[in-house]
Amino acid sequence: MTGELRVGMAGLGTVGGGVAKVLLTQKRSLEWRAARGIAITAVSARERDKDRGIQLSNVPFEADPLALAERGDVDVVVELIGGEEGVARALVEQALRAKKHVVTANKALLARHGATLAALAERNGVSLKFEAAVCGGIPIVKSLREGLIAYDVSAVRGILNGTCNFILTQMESTGRPFAEVLAEAQRLGYAEADPTLDIGGGDTAHKLALLASLAFGTVPDLDGVATTGIDKISPADIAFAGEFGYRIKLLGIARCTANGIEQLVNPAMVKTGTPLADVESSFNAVSADAGEAGTFFFQGRGAGRGPTTSAVIADLVDVARGAFGPPFGRPAAELKPPQREPAEARMSAYYLRFQVLDVPGVMAEISRHLANEMVSIESMIQRGRAPGEPVAIVMITHESQHVAVVRALKAIAASDKVFETPCMIPMEAA
Amino acid sequence: MTGELRVGMAGLGTVGGGVAKVLLTQKRSLEWRAARGIAITAVSARERDKDRGIQLSNVPFEADPLALAERGDVDVVVELIGGEEGVARALVEQALRAKKHVVTANKALLARHGATLAALAERNGVSLKFEAAVCGGIPIVKSLREGLIAYDVSAVRGILNGTCNFILTQMESTGRPFAEVLAEAQRLGYAEADPTLDIGGGDTAHKLALLASLAFGTVPDLDGVATTGIDKISPADIAFAGEFGYRIKLLGIARCTANGIEQLVNPAMVKTGTPLADVESSFNAVSADAGEAGTFFFQGRGAGRGPTTSAVIADLVDVARGAFGPPFGRPAAELKPPQREPAEARMSAYYLRFQVLDVPGVMAEISRHLANEMVSIESMIQRGRAPGEPVAIVMITHESQHVAVVRALKAIAASDKVFETPCMIPMEAA
Repeated sequence: MTGELRVGMAGLGTVGGGVAKVLLTQKRSLEWRAARGIAITAVSARERDKDRGIQLSNVPFEADPLALAERGDVDVVVELIGGEEGVARALVEQALRAKKHVVTANKALLARHGATLAALAERNGVSLKFEAAVCGGIPIVKSLREGLIAYDVSAVRGILNGTCNFILTQMESTGRPFAEVLAEAQRLGYAEADPTLDIGGGDTAHKLALLASLAFGTVPDLDGVATTGIDKISPADIAFAGEFGYRIKLLGIARCTANGIEQLVNPAMVKTGTPLADVESSFNAVSADAGEAGTFFFQGRGAGRGPTTSAVIADLVDVARGAFGPPFGRPAAELKPPQREPAEARMSAYYLRFQVLDVPGVMAEISRHLANEMVSIESMIQRGRAPGEPVAIVMITHESQHVAVVRALKAIAASDKVFETPCMIPMEAA
Repeated sequence: MTGELRVGMAGLGTVGGGVAKVLLTQKRSLEWRAARGIAITAVSARERDKDRGIQLSNVPFEADPLALAERGDVDVVVELIGGEEGVARALVEQALRAKKHVVTANKALLARHGATLAALAERNGVSLKFEAAVCGGIPIVKSLREGLIAYDVSAVRGILNGTCNFILTQMESTGRPFAEVLAEAQRLGYAEADPTLDIGGGDTAHKLALLASLAFGTVPDLDGVATTGIDKISPADIAFAGEFGYRIKLLGIARCTANGIEQLVNPAMVKTGTPLADVESSFNAVSADAGEAGTFFFQGRGAGRGPTTSAVIADLVDVARGAFGPPFGRPAAELKPPQREPAEARMSAYYLRFQVLDVPGVMAEISRHLANEMVSIESMIQRGRAPGEPVAIVMITHESQHVAVVRALKAIAASDKVFETPCMIPMEAA
């Protein structure tokens, strides 16, 4: 570990530019931390000559990012291309095979191929680091992999997508509907032109699969995440949540139970006054139950140039110091297969909202279907009266079997007195 | 780094017993993380044969902890004796000189002698690690030293002492006075028989000096911490704080300003609804302003067996992996001397409470003294009327010079219409 750590950068967009800038301007303090210099020795980007406000013109440029993996003057490849397949995957695999360390922000790639890539890194004696893939501004990967290791972590939950939290917070403060707030978020640059991955919960699922792997020592299991997005949440639900003393947040939740691992991404009712409920705007947060070490809560910026750069730089310094253990905290061969909790075991209390015709018998019909599935009601609101018109019936159930509630709702939705698909949101205790 | 990491344990109390238990029962998962085994090869404790619920009878025992530093079969000494001088200091120094790594929970030792000990560790090519010294259950030392390193940290603030937070939370929920709540906390084991270090703010000052050093790259400067404890806080102040929308918390605050470094430990008014205000019971929390990477907030258990054990184990695994940089994030020789912000530069808004005789002219007198020192009032409450009897006058000032407020209060306290020493609590923005 003498001599400079030589970095090949694949991608010089917002984050890549941020990383390059810190490497060029913070040379001395990074050298102090790493006990050696860190230098950019090759770059690859879509546009060669774009003005990025940093001096990289004397650094060799590769039109093909894959060429970075083959250069003799590169020790570590920083992959900031993105995507679970394609060039990003090819580059990471080729770099690891060529015995180059890899630092990446690519959550999709890791969530899908994490265990295979970790094994590849191990076989080649190099590191694979991805702090930037999960809530860049919160050192949660490092904390789970190196910090909270004395006791078993039994649960991780978090607000892992800033776009969704921004939209939900805005809907709450303005009372405006989802589509309107999304459009404004897109105009302000808080949401992508194609927001599917964010609002559909896919981005949260990627991050959750990685957190669950780090927390429980299991193979990342992206397909095991039951995912529901926020696009069906209405201002009415947010207002009713407030009446019950809750806020609606898109949560990623992973639990290690006696029946297996449960991974959920869905809007959830979070009790006002708890740390997760108080996470505002585009902030991210993660909490973990770490046995005898107690419950932890971390909040910070999840995305954007500064937070993501911060994570990539931390990984690079670890690589430079030679401080790298197994990517997921244990050897790839020791990662447990992810035994999924059977769908039947999933239990929760639920918030339910029905849009019904205000006619005699409708409540009896709903109650009967719920009772048939052994779902009992803890509290109920029926607001206003408008005979012959649609009104909302809102209830919170006692702890119930998820699949039973789904069956009951299906039966209820079939009634000609019920409009819209009933809304069903789990109540999250923590 | 082949072969087991051989641990010499000095101290087998609550934490030492916890560490030994994890090392004995989690052998396999720790070996996975460290890529080598970790074994206890010698112990020293006050009582040799006490039943600790763990099997250590086959481990060599040293009556004198200093002997651990000299044993050929010890690679790392875990110092859990405590105290800024005496045996703990001698052991740590001797171990480092004998080229043994040191893992310690000793905040007093590090806050006082951190830079010297870091230099000694460096000269001998070994590590000095102290995650357990600051909020054991929160990996804040690792996060500041290895995670949030791309951008300069400009401020750190935290609730660093669980005992004080427990007492203040209890005073708030029960309305009972400090002495009563302290006595109950002692009975319940939440406060020590001699609580001076906790309630006087000294323990918070130790931790703050370490956080400031990690955050700003400066020599730990314990004597530079202006420290005020919580023993003068009355139920009246807590109630008035509530009326203004604040809660009183004992904060440690370190800021890096243009004029130097400010380190404060004192009860502070924290705005309701902000993360620090919501920290309940004996929890700890730290927030940091990390430039472009944003503001972070960490909450968890600060003390006790589980959290502290967790921190010591994390340090041991880092040592076993060979993953150690400079103890304070940069070489000891590069730690900046702590240039203290001059007392005159300290500015804040303040909560002031005066117990006064309800007679004409008293308000005029107080106002005159404040005006003389250029302290202006933002809001004021005078509750109740009791002519000739003591009543409370409470005010919140605009941003004012700290020393000017102190001078004004001294002048006001000299009045024969004013009882008790006036109460002065800074308003903390974050």
